[in-house]
Amino acid sequence: MDREEQVAADVSNEVPTREELVRARARVEGIVRRTPIETCRTLDERSGASLFFKCEHLQRGGAFKLRGATNAVASLTDDEAARGVATHSSGNHAAALAIAAGRRGIAATIVMPVDAPAIKRAAVEGYGARIVSCGPTLAEREATLAQVVAETGATVVHPYDDARVIAGQATAACELIEDVPDLDVIVAPIGGGGLLSGTALAARHFAPNVRVVGAEPAWADDAAESLRLGVRQPQRPPRTIADGLRTAIGVLPFAILRAHEVAIEVVDEDTIVEAMRTTWERAKLPIEASAAVAVAVALRGGFAGKRVGVVLSGGNVDLARLPWQHA
Amino acid sequence: MDREEQVAADVSNEVPTREELVRARARVEGIVRRTPIETCRTLDERSGASLFFKCEHLQRGGAFKLRGATNAVASLTDDEAARGVATHSSGNHAAALAIAAGRRGIAATIVMPVDAPAIKRAAVEGYGARIVSCGPTLAEREATLAQVVAETGATVVHPYDDARVIAGQATAACELIEDVPDLDVIVAPIGGGGLLSGTALAARHFAPNVRVVGAEPAWADDAAESLRLGVRQPQRPPRTIADGLRTAIGVLPFAILRAHEVAIEVVDEDTIVEAMRTTWERAKLPIEASAAVAVAVALRGGFAGKRVGVVLSGGNVDLARLPWQHA
Repeated sequence: MDREEQVAADVSNEVPTREELVRARARVEGIVRRTPIETCRTLDERSGASLFFKCEHLQRGGAFKLRGATNAVASLTDDEAARGVATHSSGNHAAALAIAAGRRGIAATIVMPVDAPAIKRAAVEGYGARIVSCGPTLAEREATLAQVVAETGATVVHPYDDARVIAGQATAACELIEDVPDLDVIVAPIGGGGLLSGTALAARHFAPNVRVVGAEPAWADDAAESLRLGVRQPQRPPRTIADGLRTAIGVLPFAILRAHEVAIEVVDEDTIVEAMRTTWERAKLPIEASAAVAVAVALRGGFAGKRVGVVLSGGNVDLARLPWQHA
Repeated sequence: MDREEQVAADVSNEVPTREELVRARARVEGIVRRTPIETCRTLDERSGASLFFKCEHLQRGGAFKLRGATNAVASLTDDEAARGVATHSSGNHAAALAIAAGRRGIAATIVMPVDAPAIKRAAVEGYGARIVSCGPTLAEREATLAQVVAETGATVVHPYDDARVIAGQATAACELIEDVPDLDVIVAPIGGGGLLSGTALAARHFAPNVRVVGAEPAWADDAAESLRLGVRQPQRPPRTIADGLRTAIGVLPFAILRAHEVAIEVVDEDTIVEAMRTTWERAKLPIEASAAVAVAVALRGGFAGKRVGVVLSGGNVDLARLPWQHA
């Protein structure tokens, strides 16, 4: 039985419970920032809805990823913790795991492809993690990570296909639900699915009347396709500007989204860039393209008259190359 | 006796009192947003201080200017209000006056040079003001404004050389002082001086132990020179990237800053751009160059160990042309 079959056979074994979400809230407190909620009249007018932006671009590390990483690190036994944590990533998860490990005072090793941007390497090193370089392919990353684990005994913290990570990501929606009463909808972007599945669990347990909607680039729509067909689909060659969402949906997130019948809406590239620019220009919230995918869905007019929470997942952007300058 | 001598002769006639600041607070409530305070560990580390950013870039209209415009509009008698307000400006004050007039339901006429950016014209029109175009020189602007006043009887609301405007701008520092206990210093940028003189008055009346420091571009340092010499100096041809600070200091702001012995620190262009970029990249606060001048002063290391309020004056930026892309 491969992992897919295992999860399918008994999802309840892995899916974080209400109690695990409550425990995650307590664990992230003091490490993860309770980010503010922002609003913007111009975007309300354009959407016909009342939008409440959960500002995870103001999270430490510039993205929601610190939530899952912190919960995963806090879940380790002292023995496990002593051997450290490891992952392969050149994105927001790498920075998040570095910060979370640093807060517990344990080692973090990040496997990064040699062609990762210098600014990302510097950020991860700045947070105190060790970087091990590898070739650019997924196979090379995985082989290098396996070697790190063999040498150090570190626990691998997967960026999304991990119940502790999902429970951590759920804390963003938990806060949003507490801070904004009477929400009708929460929109969150989907890449690997950690954030969206956590959001679905948070709504289920703490605001069962809130509908959760996923936002996915049309050029990376494996999650929408997977849910439509009932079987995980491979990602097409990822070209979307929303680089945080190029990943294929994970096994556990897929099972959770499927069980909760979460709808996913897809948006094209121009709409993503336009939503990103409008959010910068009018709301003064400098979000990355992945976050703009959720804004694009919220602006589309499908939520007229509703109170809509929008998870702005991150704000790590190369300021030297903004997408509208290359349109 | 010209206006300069008049003010010098009896400043107390014009300088807003404590009571006028209290009244301004009440008038702006419900129209002006009480903007949040943000912090950033990276910027704290770089400055050696604890920085508290007053986020006026999240103000309606994208700048603190709405405060002064709202107080000025609220100060009008019903007769005056019926004839409307007018100003010449292509910047943040134009948008602010348009919004403030709209909230009172009165007419606003904005005299704008023909070469003003289309996006600024559209914003002002979007807020419901009437635009009258004129030639690009100051003389043409003033002649056109005089004509508007002759035709409509509108009250001219000057962007900074006006006691009601200064009292309105003071409300930003009043909120900052309330929200952040035990501040040692407040840094604010200076162009015409409405914000900085209001900040000085707020500190004087509500936090007398707080030192107020002005931040000015070296390429537009007329205020620093004026205070050093004790007489208002003309602005040199303004080239600074901080376009909101190219104006020369006003008569009344100068008198207030002089009376309160406010120190002004100047910063060069590279330092402004670097501070702006760092604030975007690390704090995720998309401020305009004029606001970055205050951040640059705060980062310079002169406030080690202090609790420093920094007024982020605005966030209206042309996203197609960011300064570090043209360095």
